[in-house]
Amino acid sequence: MREFILKASKAFTSPFNLNDLVGSGRIDLVCRCISNAFFVSEAIRKDVCFHAILEGPREPPKLISFFGSELKNISPDEKSIASLIRRALKAGLGLKKGEEKFVSSGIKVAKKSFEELIKEKAKSCQLIYLYPKGKDIREFEFREDFCFVLGDQKGLPKKTESLLERVGAEKVSVGKITYLASHVIVICHNELDRRL
Amino acid sequence: MREFILKASKAFTSPFNLNDLVGSGRIDLVCRCISNAFFVSEAIRKDVCFHAILEGPREPPKLISFFGSELKNISPDEKSIASLIRRALKAGLGLKKGEEKFVSSGIKVAKKSFEELIKEKAKSCQLIYLYPKGKDIREFEFREDFCFVLGDQKGLPKKTESLLERVGAEKVSVGKITYLASHVIVICHNELDRRL
Repeated sequence: MREFILKASKAFTSPFNLNDLVGSGRIDLVCRCISNAFFVSEAIRKDVCFHAILEGPREPPKLISFFGSELKNISPDEKSIASLIRRALKAGLGLKKGEEKFVSSGIKVAKKSFEELIKEKAKSCQLIYLYPKGKDIREFEFREDFCFVLGDQKGLPKKTESLLERVGAEKVSVGKITYLASHVIVICHNELDRRL
Repeated sequence: MREFILKASKAFTSPFNLNDLVGSGRIDLVCRCISNAFFVSEAIRKDVCFHAILEGPREPPKLISFFGSELKNISPDEKSIASLIRRALKAGLGLKKGEEKFVSSGIKVAKKSFEELIKEKAKSCQLIYLYPKGKDIREFEFREDFCFVLGDQKGLPKKTESLLERVGAEKVSVGKITYLASHVIVICHNELDRRL
């Protein structure tokens, strides 16, 4: 299983305008990450799970999880994916802390914070913080269960980096350049695909 | 200079509906390729040139070229890039064979076919056809001037593959899996960035 966590610090947590994804707290960026996490030519990666933590207005935080093994009717374009996110946010309106709800096949919404999710995942898998100065991914040893952690256009704040350090996340780099989160996902997949 | 050519066999060649990129001959796919060709975190790649050959209705073919060294006011989301393409198509309405027009800083539209562009580029640079069964990119020797050739969701037709063979294009693979064109671009950049 290839698992990803994206911290989207500005992304709206209540239903937004599908024709203005940039103005909805950079939902466009979240959509591109999801698209790149799941799509290969003419197929969906069944072995992927993607968690988007949205932290923008009006009901932060919201965790939307996508499970490749069960996803149906998903297209790679930003607007199609945004409509799935919007539907999940609509279903999740008013959720109380710790509550969760299945939205449609392969999509779940929960009232859960980034910190809570990280602490939970740290117990069951190898946490990998994608960081330009980390160990080169081409030389990295993956354990059986691992989970990549990504920041959005703002990167990860110091507080979050400290949390990742405390729970033992390993720093891994995909190259010397600072890439967009959506590009980092493609590079991680490519490296893992080469090892199959 | 990193140069890319994308053959978008269905993409509309007259102004389309910005709120329906998928229905406009998969303009969404073209946009994702352009986004991935130019963006790194908080910057534009100045050393990139991207040529999109659109072959859908109503005025095929149209070549829209983007030059990173001169691009201004470009954002990575599909809709923003689509609006640049739409503007170029509007400016290019009625162009006759061989004619071209500058649309805005770093963007040019021309009435030129894929075949014409390939023959032209074959004279001045190393043409690289990205193909799953080609030579591994990690072991490939790039010359100083090179140009990647990509197909869309339909891949490249036999006739086009024969043309590429005739002009001496080299087959290069980014991995065993067939990736989306937009992902292939990210992987090519990453390999080249690592060699800098």
